[in-house]
Parts: sequence; structure tokens; C-alpha cells
Amino acid sequence: MELKQIEHIGIATPSLEEAIPYYENVLGLKCYNIEVVEDQKVKTAFFMIGEVKLELLEPTCEESTIAKFIEKNGGRGGVHHIAFKTADVAACLADATEKGVRLIDAAPRKGAEGLNIAFLHPKSTMGVLTEICENPKEK
Amino acid sequence: MELKQIEHIGIATPSLEEAIPYYENVLGLKCYNIEVVEDQKVKTAFFMIGEVKLELLEPTCEESTIAKFIEKNGGRGGVHHIAFKTADVAACLADATEKGVRLIDAAPRKGAEGLNIAFLHPKSTMGVLTEICENPKEK
Repeated sequence: MELKQIEHIGIATPSLEEAIPYYENVLGLKCYNIEVVEDQKVKTAFFMIGEVKLELLEPTCEESTIAKFIEKNGGRGGVHHIAFKTADVAACLADATEKGVRLIDAAPRKGAEGLNIAFLHPKSTMGVLTEICENPKEK
Repeated sequence: MELKQIEHIGIATPSLEEAIPYYENVLGLKCYNIEVVEDQKVKTAFFMIGEVKLELLEPTCEESTIAKFIEKNGGRGGVHHIAFKTADVAACLADATEKGVRLIDAAPRKGAEGLNIAFLHPKSTMGVLTEICENPKEK
């Protein structure tokens, strides 16, 4: 598949209220967007560093996969996934399937910031939950 | 602190022999360097995507912190740390200390690829093991 760059790093956090001041005051980054993604049961906060976004993810309910990730991680946050940018998510999924990679999403769906996204299963990606995304505005 | 970009994402793996073909054949990236870092008891493999490196880390012995990470992770690999690039690691460490951040390295030390590096403690960085690094050739 043809991947261009890291689009974002998804970081789970139990509390955006605690995490945002850390990213702003300690790391010196600037939160430029906060968005609830109902579909994924998360509230997200975005920071830009170089060409990469950091996407903080706070669960909005206990059924959120992010809530489960945090619970398994001893109540702490941590890196949840890496998202790669491509020009064509559907082509990447077809290619991955052909190479025996297990998919979480069989077809692209809408993610935060209007991107089309799909996840590959960490059992097929060396333990790293992997997202592939494209910006439909750049198509 | 002044961070410029993500320098690399450190990804633990039980086996470079298995992981490198996945990154090359499935993700379509190219391994451009393999290096043993004796100090950190790891064998590393590097890939470039956009401005960011992926640094795969295989433990070279059981006492390696990467071996312990994999063991705690149920024998699987996963994202181990995020490294931010700065022009001055020592200044970042002084700034972090002043802001109450716990350090793993009180002063910069040598890392892979000739960089000067230091780690911040994940208890102070919202659960994400955080590396700060500078390229002495760019100083």
C-alpha cells in the first residue's frame, strides 16, 4: 500500500481536562480543535507538531473502546493507535486483505475531522492498532 | 519547551525478523538501517515515513526494558515511546524539571543514530513514555 505520512498518533487519556494543560504548558503545543465523535464514543483534542497531529481521546461512556483500553492499562492513558495517511483507503484495504491482514473495518467510514478512515487489526499489525485515513477534500 | 516535530515512534517487537517483512511488504515502507544499541540492550530497525521515523525495537537480552515491556504486554509488541525533536535537550529537561515533570534521564545521553536523547517519566507525561532528542550535527 502507498502511505504518505503519519496523519496522527491516537493517545488515550482518562481526562482531557488534565491532559490538555500538560500538552500545552509542558510540551508547548497548542490545542486547535476539540470534537466529540459520537460513533466512536470519544471526545478528542487535537495538537499539531510538524506534519503530525496528536489526537487525545477521552471516553464519553464506559462502553467506549477507549474506556476499555484505559481500564486494561491500569487506569492510565497511553498510545492507542497510529494513523497513516494515504490517497486511497479502499485500495489499501484491498491490498491488506490480499496480503492476509485482518481488518477491523471492511470499508472506509467517517472519522474525526471529516476523514475517511479504517482500522487494521493489531493481531495482523505486529501489536500496533493501525488506522489508514484519507482526506476526501484532497481527492 | 520548544519541540519541532516527531522525530520517531519507538515500537517494541519480539522479532525483527517477523516485523521487518510486515512493514516492508504490507505497509510498503523501506528499512534503511539496522543498528544494535548496546546501552539500551536493543536491536533497532528504522523506516522513514514523511518526516517521521519508525524505530522498531527488539530486545537483545531478557534484562532489556523492551523485553519487560513485551512480557507485560502479553508477549506482543506495541508502541513503546514517542520521541520529539528539539534543538536543545538540556534546555527541555531544565524546563520540564521546573514544571514538576519527573525525568528518567537527568542529562542527555547518546541514543541510536548518534542523537542526544533523554526520557521523561510516563507518570509525568500522561502515560506516554516520552523521549526528547536533538541531532548534534545540526547544532
